[in-house]
Amino acid sequence: MSLLIDTLDLIRPQDVEARQMAQDRLDSLTMPHWALGQLMDTARDLAGISGSLEPHLERRVIAVMAGDHGVCAEGVSAFPQEVTPQMVANFVTGGAGVNALARTAGADVMVVDMGVAGDLAEYKAAGAVLDKHIARGTANMMVEPAMTRKEAEAAITAGIEVANDLAESYDILCTGDMGIGNTTASAAIAAVFTGQDVDELTGYGTGITDAVRHKKVSVIKEALRIHAPSADDPVGVLEKVGGFEIGGICGFILGCAALKRPVVVDGFISTAGALLAQALSPSSVDYMICAHCSQEHGHRFMLEHLGKDPLLDLGFRLGEGTGAAMALPLIESAGRLLSEVATFEEAAVSGRE
Amino acid sequence: MSLLIDTLDLIRPQDVEARQMAQDRLDSLTMPHWALGQLMDTARDLAGISGSLEPHLERRVIAVMAGDHGVCAEGVSAFPQEVTPQMVANFVTGGAGVNALARTAGADVMVVDMGVAGDLAEYKAAGAVLDKHIARGTANMMVEPAMTRKEAEAAITAGIEVANDLAESYDILCTGDMGIGNTTASAAIAAVFTGQDVDELTGYGTGITDAVRHKKVSVIKEALRIHAPSADDPVGVLEKVGGFEIGGICGFILGCAALKRPVVVDGFISTAGALLAQALSPSSVDYMICAHCSQEHGHRFMLEHLGKDPLLDLGFRLGEGTGAAMALPLIESAGRLLSEVATFEEAAVSGRE
Repeated sequence: MSLLIDTLDLIRPQDVEARQMAQDRLDSLTMPHWALGQLMDTARDLAGISGSLEPHLERRVIAVMAGDHGVCAEGVSAFPQEVTPQMVANFVTGGAGVNALARTAGADVMVVDMGVAGDLAEYKAAGAVLDKHIARGTANMMVEPAMTRKEAEAAITAGIEVANDLAESYDILCTGDMGIGNTTASAAIAAVFTGQDVDELTGYGTGITDAVRHKKVSVIKEALRIHAPSADDPVGVLEKVGGFEIGGICGFILGCAALKRPVVVDGFISTAGALLAQALSPSSVDYMICAHCSQEHGHRFMLEHLGKDPLLDLGFRLGEGTGAAMALPLIESAGRLLSEVATFEEAAVSGRE
Repeated sequence: MSLLIDTLDLIRPQDVEARQMAQDRLDSLTMPHWALGQLMDTARDLAGISGSLEPHLERRVIAVMAGDHGVCAEGVSAFPQEVTPQMVANFVTGGAGVNALARTAGADVMVVDMGVAGDLAEYKAAGAVLDKHIARGTANMMVEPAMTRKEAEAAITAGIEVANDLAESYDILCTGDMGIGNTTASAAIAAVFTGQDVDELTGYGTGITDAVRHKKVSVIKEALRIHAPSADDPVGVLEKVGGFEIGGICGFILGCAALKRPVVVDGFISTAGALLAQALSPSSVDYMICAHCSQEHGHRFMLEHLGKDPLLDLGFRLGEGTGAAMALPLIESAGRLLSEVATFEEAAVSGRE
């Protein structure tokens, strides 16, 4: 827990001076004012995050946090729980969606076992999966809290450790997730923080039917009724209706914020982690770059609650860090705007009449 | 003109069998069905365009077509005409927005003089600017047709030649533009083909005031009244209210379509060229990938008329090919989905329950 407290202590808002210097430079580039829209917003953020007009963005990693969910016993997913470890194997051998997209983005994929209900010993021994395993999946939130308070704290702390480790080798860090059942936990977390109706926040996940979605809404409502999680106690929210990988993502974001590193937040699950991070440290939002708006119901409300305008909207609903991967070239380009584009003066281009 | 006729003759719809093979493969990938949305749509298009499940996308180029506009005499732009050749110089020395974004995308930038009102001899001699110069800017469409019919045909033909030349060295070709005053010509072209009200189609271009935009709307309406261009005669539309670079873009798209190469259509100006290409050959639309929705008023109506869903919406309003550059990593990723992602069977991942 002390790593969490120390980390929260380190998080400060963006560097206002660097933001202003970036703004001044961007205002004078050889183009109509702010003509590259969100790329220029992102460039200003990168300066504010790093305190520099030449942010390092070369070395990139996507941390895919994996965990299982006891709530699957309620029949809320279209796929069986065994898919979680099977997909971890797929990540390791490079055959998943995130692997293909990470190649385009020049990013490494690092899989983290936060609490998978399966045997990953072989992969861990080979160094292909980072071991932060807390338990073989959460408990069923319809029956009891998803985890103990100690486990919730451990999950967040583990995420901070992952960020601290990866920040030694990488400049920009991305979130990702894998876990059958984790849209259920994420929608429950979203309901606590956004105050939106559960029905609005609950989507079709991996592709469930209307009947199953109806069931999923009931399960979330009932779990929230039984455990009554409060937005004032974010660790308690994770404990009652969360997931190990979601806690890991929360910690990962906090770790990046404390290190003044940009952290690219992927989709629905990652944004649930981001809401926990925001609740623990409002200034951590300053370090988040939200990659995309998911097709999953409710993501837009979560992004609104963060006050973030996502870069992409491509109808993705996969997770894994695929949205984050596709945001990376945009973020790289934003960085280039700060140093590679000439001003009107430098290029001797005439200004407005 | 015979190159135009020959080119139009070669354009066929996408390969239906390759599209179906792509669809079958994409349907079986280790992810919920179509969970990467528009990236999967694009992957299917790439298969249909190339007739292959392994489309070549490595060698990339952005052709920035530059031209000047006589209608600037009416005071429709915020910047003086001399900015067009000045920006050509900026492209050549690598200091413009498109240069920075092309570096992220791994694309070369090739500048084409379609009709700049300035001396670019030095750059042409050095091979830094491709010479397809037709005249030193168009005529003022408020006074006379923007160009002669012969010039309109020559502009389109020149664009085809550029596509044919570049296709020898590049796999995927992108459009781009530079030309003070060219949002005026593009809005006029859009009005002819979409039937939308000129006021809806006319935006703030490089950042004009409301008063100037009001003037711009009047100029476009008056030019359309005087010359009465008809959607049934696309070459006549280019002649009456077009621009040399817009004609070049039209030809460039047709050339790519005839060669079965994907052509990435940039923003507002490029889409005006795409509307001309569509009118000349409806099947040419099958080869277009629309990069983004511009902040420029009216672009959405043009995209709708093409029947295209753009990949990005980042508040860009720069042109130059900047939107196309930012679409390239998405398109590269779409290509990877066809060959680099495992199926459920290959990865031994359990399917839906």
